[in-house]
Amino acid sequence: MPKENTENNEKFGYFDDLNYEYVITTPYTPTPWINYLGNDGFYGLISNTAGGYCFDRDPKFRRLTRYRYNSVPLDNGGRYFYIGCNGEYWSATGRPVNTELDEYTCRHGMGYSRFNASKNNIATEVTSFIPLNTKAEVHRLIVTNNNDTEQSVDVFSFIEWCLWNAEDDGANYQRNLSTGEVEVEDSTIYHKTEYRERRNHYAFYSVNRELDGFETDRESFLGPYRGFDRPLAVEKGQASNSIARGWSPIASHHLKLQLAPGESQSLVFTLGYCEVEPEQKWAAPNIINKTPAQVLSARFDCDEKVSAELKKLNDYWHNLLGKFQVQTPDDKFNRAVNIWNQYQNMVTFNLSRSASFYESGIGRGMGFRDSNQDTIGFAHMVPEKVKERILDLSATQKEDGSAYHQYQPLTKKGNADIGGNFNDDPMWMVLSTANYIKETGDFSILDEVVPFDSDPNNTASHFTHLERSFNHVVNNLGPHGLPLIGRADWNDCLNLNCFSENPNESYQTTQRGASDVAESVMIAGQFVLYGQEFVDLCINIGKADLAKSCQSEVDKMRQTIKQHAWDGEWFLRAYDANGDKIGSNDNAEGKIFIESQGFCVMAGVGFDDGKALQAMNSVEKHLSTDFGIMLNQPAFTGYNKYIGEITSYPPGYKENAGIFCHNNPWITISEAMLGRGEKAYEYYSKITPAFLQDVHQLHKTEPYVYSQMIAGADSATPGEAKNSWLTGTAAWNYYAATQYILGIRPEYQGLRIDPCILPSWDKVSVSRTFRGATYKIELRNPLGLSKGVIQLEIDGQKIAGDMIDPTVFANQHNVIATLCNKD
Amino acid sequence: MPKENTENNEKFGYFDDLNYEYVITTPYTPTPWINYLGNDGFYGLISNTAGGYCFDRDPKFRRLTRYRYNSVPLDNGGRYFYIGCNGEYWSATGRPVNTELDEYTCRHGMGYSRFNASKNNIATEVTSFIPLNTKAEVHRLIVTNNNDTEQSVDVFSFIEWCLWNAEDDGANYQRNLSTGEVEVEDSTIYHKTEYRERRNHYAFYSVNRELDGFETDRESFLGPYRGFDRPLAVEKGQASNSIARGWSPIASHHLKLQLAPGESQSLVFTLGYCEVEPEQKWAAPNIINKTPAQVLSARFDCDEKVSAELKKLNDYWHNLLGKFQVQTPDDKFNRAVNIWNQYQNMVTFNLSRSASFYESGIGRGMGFRDSNQDTIGFAHMVPEKVKERILDLSATQKEDGSAYHQYQPLTKKGNADIGGNFNDDPMWMVLSTANYIKETGDFSILDEVVPFDSDPNNTASHFTHLERSFNHVVNNLGPHGLPLIGRADWNDCLNLNCFSENPNESYQTTQRGASDVAESVMIAGQFVLYGQEFVDLCINIGKADLAKSCQSEVDKMRQTIKQHAWDGEWFLRAYDANGDKIGSNDNAEGKIFIESQGFCVMAGVGFDDGKALQAMNSVEKHLSTDFGIMLNQPAFTGYNKYIGEITSYPPGYKENAGIFCHNNPWITISEAMLGRGEKAYEYYSKITPAFLQDVHQLHKTEPYVYSQMIAGADSATPGEAKNSWLTGTAAWNYYAATQYILGIRPEYQGLRIDPCILPSWDKVSVSRTFRGATYKIELRNPLGLSKGVIQLEIDGQKIAGDMIDPTVFANQHNVIATLCNKD
Repeated sequence: MPKENTENNEKFGYFDDLNYEYVITTPYTPTPWINYLGNDGFYGLISNTAGGYCFDRDPKFRRLTRYRYNSVPLDNGGRYFYIGCNGEYWSATGRPVNTELDEYTCRHGMGYSRFNASKNNIATEVTSFIPLNTKAEVHRLIVTNNNDTEQSVDVFSFIEWCLWNAEDDGANYQRNLSTGEVEVEDSTIYHKTEYRERRNHYAFYSVNRELDGFETDRESFLGPYRGFDRPLAVEKGQASNSIARGWSPIASHHLKLQLAPGESQSLVFTLGYCEVEPEQKWAAPNIINKTPAQVLSARFDCDEKVSAELKKLNDYWHNLLGKFQVQTPDDKFNRAVNIWNQYQNMVTFNLSRSASFYESGIGRGMGFRDSNQDTIGFAHMVPEKVKERILDLSATQKEDGSAYHQYQPLTKKGNADIGGNFNDDPMWMVLSTANYIKETGDFSILDEVVPFDSDPNNTASHFTHLERSFNHVVNNLGPHGLPLIGRADWNDCLNLNCFSENPNESYQTTQRGASDVAESVMIAGQFVLYGQEFVDLCINIGKADLAKSCQSEVDKMRQTIKQHAWDGEWFLRAYDANGDKIGSNDNAEGKIFIESQGFCVMAGVGFDDGKALQAMNSVEKHLSTDFGIMLNQPAFTGYNKYIGEITSYPPGYKENAGIFCHNNPWITISEAMLGRGEKAYEYYSKITPAFLQDVHQLHKTEPYVYSQMIAGADSATPGEAKNSWLTGTAAWNYYAATQYILGIRPEYQGLRIDPCILPSWDKVSVSRTFRGATYKIELRNPLGLSKGVIQLEIDGQKIAGDMIDPTVFANQHNVIATLCNKD
Repeated sequence: MPKENTENNEKFGYFDDLNYEYVITTPYTPTPWINYLGNDGFYGLISNTAGGYCFDRDPKFRRLTRYRYNSVPLDNGGRYFYIGCNGEYWSATGRPVNTELDEYTCRHGMGYSRFNASKNNIATEVTSFIPLNTKAEVHRLIVTNNNDTEQSVDVFSFIEWCLWNAEDDGANYQRNLSTGEVEVEDSTIYHKTEYRERRNHYAFYSVNRELDGFETDRESFLGPYRGFDRPLAVEKGQASNSIARGWSPIASHHLKLQLAPGESQSLVFTLGYCEVEPEQKWAAPNIINKTPAQVLSARFDCDEKVSAELKKLNDYWHNLLGKFQVQTPDDKFNRAVNIWNQYQNMVTFNLSRSASFYESGIGRGMGFRDSNQDTIGFAHMVPEKVKERILDLSATQKEDGSAYHQYQPLTKKGNADIGGNFNDDPMWMVLSTANYIKETGDFSILDEVVPFDSDPNNTASHFTHLERSFNHVVNNLGPHGLPLIGRADWNDCLNLNCFSENPNESYQTTQRGASDVAESVMIAGQFVLYGQEFVDLCINIGKADLAKSCQSEVDKMRQTIKQHAWDGEWFLRAYDANGDKIGSNDNAEGKIFIESQGFCVMAGVGFDDGKALQAMNSVEKHLSTDFGIMLNQPAFTGYNKYIGEITSYPPGYKENAGIFCHNNPWITISEAMLGRGEKAYEYYSKITPAFLQDVHQLHKTEPYVYSQMIAGADSATPGEAKNSWLTGTAAWNYYAATQYILGIRPEYQGLRIDPCILPSWDKVSVSRTFRGATYKIELRNPLGLSKGVIQLEIDGQKIAGDMIDPTVFANQHNVIATLCNKD
C-alpha cells in the first residue's frame, strides 16, 4: 500500500486533531517529515521513517547517535527495527529497507511518534518517546501475528553511535576510527568511546528481554559496502555477536520471537545516556560502572511502566497547550493555534535553531536576537523558563548596551568569534522582557542583578541592561538621525558595510565599509516600537523622569522616520555606506522591502497621516503572492557587494525576494492594528501549513510546522518551502494570531480583548490561562465586524472597557466579549 | 565472478610491475583502495570502484565534487557510469550498483586508474586520469558489444557537485539548499553555484557526443530516498532533463549507443574547472562565459588526443621514477622502492596530509614538521619543488626560531589558531635543507632572503633561519639540560604540559603544566643528529667559528643524554612536568618508547660504549612484533592527564602502543648504521605493504602504500592498518631503504656507497640520477656480507674510498661497488 513515490502524485497524510497528531501515510514524503522528542535537556529528532539522532543538551558536543545530513539515500541513520519472517525482511518504520509494506502509518504526536506497519500479516507498532525528566529514548515495539499459523519472527534493532563530538565525528577520521569501544552485558550494549579518558558519561541501548545475538561493529552488521537497506546479519537471520574495536561502533539486538496466531509480543528498547562521577566510573579495570544504566532502563522494563510514562507525557502536553485553546469556525486556524503552533514554539525554545533536518547541530550557538524574539511564543506556557532565558541573554550584553550576536549554550558566554555589532540586537530584549512581565505581572525580573559580558565583577540590574539597550540606539545614530545598521540588522544578509569579494570569508563578520554612515529604517521602527515599550515600562515602575527623556528620543525618531525614511508610497529600508537609499522607488532592484513596512507600522508610525495604510497597500501590491509576502521586490539579479549576501542568492530564494516567513506576521499584525481583519487573516493563512494541504507536494516540508522560507515569485519553484521547524516564524505567527487576530493580549494591567477577525466569524471561544486564573472567553460578533468596540461581561456582570483585571477576577471566570461598532 | 565478499575469504588483487600497476580483482576490498590523480595543483582521489572526489589546490575551499566520508554504504559518491542493456543495469566501475559482474578489474597505475568490466558480453573500459598541467579529470569509456547480435546500450554518467567549500557544504544547509545553480548547453553541464557572486570560477562535465538526455537535479536522477545503487532515471532508461534549482545539483549525461556485434564505441568525459577574469564572467545576463570550458574540453574531444595525453603522463612518471631504480634478488623490495614508495612520496608531496580516505580535506594545513620530513622522499625527483617548499616553510618561522606548527596552503601564512611551541619543529628544517643540498649541490638556498612570520619587512637569509632553529633548542633547555618539549615533540600525543580534563578541548592546544620543566629525549637526539648536520653545513660554507661553537653545544647535548637520558637498558623518553621520568623501567606503563631509541642511535649516541646496541636490543625485545615495531610498551591501560592524548587511545592503537609506522624506519636506519643488515631488512619488510600479500584481509588498507598505523600486540586486531597514503612513513622508509639499506647516500661531496644489506643478496643493480649524471651501479657481495668496506670501480677504473664525485664523473657512468670485509 505505501508505494514508493516515483511519479510525484501521492497524498502524504492528514491531521488527527483529536489526538493532537499528524498521520503520515507513506514513507515517501517529499522531504523527511520530522518530529522532536524530549523536553528537559535530552532531545531526539525523528523522521517519519525513524531517521534522525538524539543528544544531551548540546547537539555538537554530546551527540549519542550518528546521522548523515544530505545523505544518499536521503535520511540515512536512525532507530531502525528490521523484521524478518519467512525469508523476507522489512522495516517496522517504513524504511530503510525497500520492501514494500502492506500497511504503513507514522503518527507524529506531542513529544512522541508512533509507527504502524504490516507485511504478510505480521503487524508492528513502534512507539518512540523521551519520557519526562529522562535522558533516554524509549522505543516500544509490539509485534503481532495476524496469520492463522504460528510464525517465527526475527527482530533486529539498530542504531549507530556517534563518537560524541558531532563535528569531530564527521571530520577527524585518523583518530576516530581507532577510538571506538563498547561493552555488552546481558541485553545491554554500552557505548564507552572516550569514557576511558576525559568523558564521564556513556550511552547504552538495552531491551527488556534475553538476546539471541547482537552486533556492535557496523561492518559485521551491514556487510561490506552495503547500505542500511540490506544488512547482512538481517539477510542471514543471525547476528554474529561482534565487538567493535575502533571503526564504527553500533548497537543491534537480535531477538527471535515465536508467535502463535493472533499473539502479540512487546519489546521495550531504551537508548540512554548516563553521567558518572569520576571516582565511580569503573566497576573493574576497563569495565564501566553500569549501575546508572541499569537503574535507568529498569524504569522501562515492562509495558505498564512505558504506558504510565506515555500518559505522563501526554498530560504534560495537554496541560501546556491547554493554557490557550480557541474554537473559531475555522478548523485550520484552530488546529494551528491550539496544537501545532504552540508545539513548534516549545520545540524552538528547547532547540533554539540548533538541530533540525536543515540545521546540522554543529554550526551555531544561541542567537541573542532570535532567542529574545522566540520567547513571545511560549511566555504563556513556561514563564519561569522565559525568565531564565532572558537573564541568560542579558548576562552576555556588554557594558555599552551592545550584544554578542550569539552565545554558547554550554558555557552561556558570548561567542567572541562572531562578535557583535548587529545593531538591532539590543532592543529585542525590551520586547522579551516587556512581554514576559505583561504575561506574568512579575516586575521583579527588572531587579535581578545581571553581569555584563559574563563578568561577575561587573553587574547591574536587568532594568539597567534594558536602559543600555535603549541608549545603544540613541548613541549610534547616523547622518539622518536614523540608527546605524552595523554589520546587519534583523536581515543578516543586508550587509551594507561588508563589500566582500572573497568567497572564503563570511559576509557577516567581514567589514570594510564606513559603519558610521549606513542606517537602518527597520531599526528605526523597532526603536519607536520597543523604545515606547521601554517608556511604558518606566512609567509602570514609577520612573517618570527617565520615561520623559526616553519619550522625547522616541518621538524624535518617529519624526525622523517621517522626514527621512518615507519614499512616497512606502518606507525606505536603509541608507547605504554612501548615504544612498536602499528600498526606494529610485532603485532599479530592491525598491521595496517588507521589514521596514512591518516595523514602522507596528510602531504606529503613519497612522495619523495615512502613511501606514499606504505602506500596507504597497506591500500588497508589490510583495504579496499566493504563497506569502516576499521580502523585497524586484529581486536582485546579480551580486552587489555594497548590499551584501542578500544579493548572493538566486532571485526568489531566501532573503533575495523569497518569502522569508519570519517577517510575514509583522504585516499580519500591522493589518490587524489597522483594523483590516480579512487582510490579517489572509496573510496569516497563506504561510500557515495547516492551510496548505493541497500544495504539499510543492511545499515539500512538514504540513504541521512553519518553515523559514518559501520560494518567491521570481524563483523557478514558487511555493517550495525550506528550513522547517526552527524559525522565528513560529513565535511571531502565534503572537500575531493570538494577540492581534484574536486580540487576547496581555498588558501590564490585565488581559485586553481587542480582536481583529474575519467578519464571517460570528463566534469564537477561547480558554486562556493568565496569571493563575483561567478565563473562558466567548467572543460574539453579531454584526459581522472585523474590529470594533468590545463590551465585556464577566460571570454575567458588565465591565467597563476591554480589559480583564486579574487582580479583580482571579481563579476561573466566564467572559463574554461582544464586538460592537465603534460608535 | 567478482562476488560480494560476505565471508571474508577472498583474494583481492596482485601487482603488475611491468605496467607499474596494482590490479584489484574485486569491488569488495576490505576498505576502498584508492589512487590519486593529478600532479599540478588539481587532484582527484579515486577508489577501486571510482569513489572519491576532485579539487583545485585546496580540498576545503575548492572542492568540485561531493563525497561522503564514513558513509553507509561505504565509499559513497564518485564518477559513476551506469550501463543499461536489455532491462538490466550495472556499474562500469564495479559499484555502486549491486548487480554482480561477469568480469571486473581495477588497475591503479601512476596517476591513472583503469576499470574493466563485463556483463552479458557487454564489456566496458573506463580510463580515468588528470592530464599533465590540466585542471580536469578525463574519463574515457569504451563500450564493446561481444554478443553476436546488435545491442542497444544506455550509458548514464554521474557526478554530484560539491558547493565548493567542503566544510560549509556539509554543515550549512539552511543556505546551501537554496544556492545551487547549473546551466546545460550542448553536451556540457555547467556547475555555477555562487558564480553569480564572489566566485570567479565554475566547473563543468562534458562528453564528446550528442546527448540523449541529462539530469542536473539529484532527486530527479535518483528518485526519492534511493541510493546510488538504483537511480530511477537509469531504471526507467530515460533522463528527464532536469534543471537543478537549489537542493543538490549533479551532472548526469544520458547516451544511447547502438552497437553491432563486436563493435566498440568510445566516449570521452571531461570534468573540468575554469577560472574567469571578473570582467569576462558573463556571456549574457545570467549566462556564464563558456569559452574556457570549451577550450579545455576540446583538448580531449577524441580518442587520439586522450591517448596522447595518457602517453605524456606515462612518460612523466617513468622519467620521475627512473631517477632511482634498483634490482635486488627480492622482487618485493624492488617493487616497493622502484614504484610504489616513490609514487607515494610524490602523492604525499602533492597532498601534504590533507586529503585521503581518512583525511577529510577540511581539517588542517601544511605541517611544518611533516612537510620538512617529507622532502627527504622526493628531493631526488623534484628538487626544484623541494627548494620552494623549504623556503615556504622557512618564511613561516618566527624570529626566535620557533615555528608555527602548520601553515595554510592558499595564503602560505602560519596558522595562528594552532600556534607553535611544538619544540621539535625548528630542527626538521635543518634535515630538509641539508638533504636538499646533498642531493643537488645547490648551496644557494642558504642565501635566499626569507621573511620571519611572513613579514616581508623582517627578513634574513635562509641560513640565518637554520641558525635560529639551532639556537631555539639551545635557548630552551630544561632542568637536566635536555630540550624542553613544549606542547609536544614529534609525538603530538605525548602532552606533558596539558593536564586536560575537558573532553571538548584539544590536548595539543591546551596547556596548564609547567612548560619550563618537561624535557624531551627525542628532541635531544634530534638535536645531536641535526645539530651535527648544521655544524657540517657551517664547515662546508666556511663558517668555522660558528661551526666550532655549535659543535660544543652538540657535544654537550651528547654528554647530557648519556648522563641524564640513559635508563640502564634503553634511552628514556622524557621528563614530565614534575621532573619525573617517562619511558623508564621505573614506570609501570610506557617503560620504553621507540622515538628516543631511534633518534639517539641515528645521532650516533652510544656507539662508543655499547648503549646504541643495547638500545636496539631492547627495542627488539620489548617493542618488535610480527607486524612492526610498537611505539611503546607496556601500553597505557587508562588515561593519565599528565601524559596526555597518548593515553586516551585504547591499548595497541595509534600512539598508545600501536605500530606507528613513521618511526619504524628510524630503527631500520639505526640497525643499518650498526651494521646489522638482517635486522634492518626485517624491520623494513615488516611494515612494507608489498610484503604483506598474505595478510591483506587483516591489514585492510591498500597493499601498495604505507599506512600511518598498524594495530599493535595489545590490541584486539594486531596487524590491522589504518590511515593509508599520507604518512611520514613513506618518505622515511624510502630514505631508509635507499640511503641506509642500499646505502646510496648523497653527501655534500658526492654519492657515497655504504650499503647494509641482506647477506644473501649477492648482487644488486642500481640506476641513480645524481646532479645531472646517471650512475649504473652494480653492487657485488661475493662474501655474503651485510656491511663492509666498499671497493669502487668506475667505468673500469678503481677509485679510492666509497664516494662518487660528480664533479669528476659527470654524465653517465658504470660503477661496480664490491662489498669487502672491513680489514
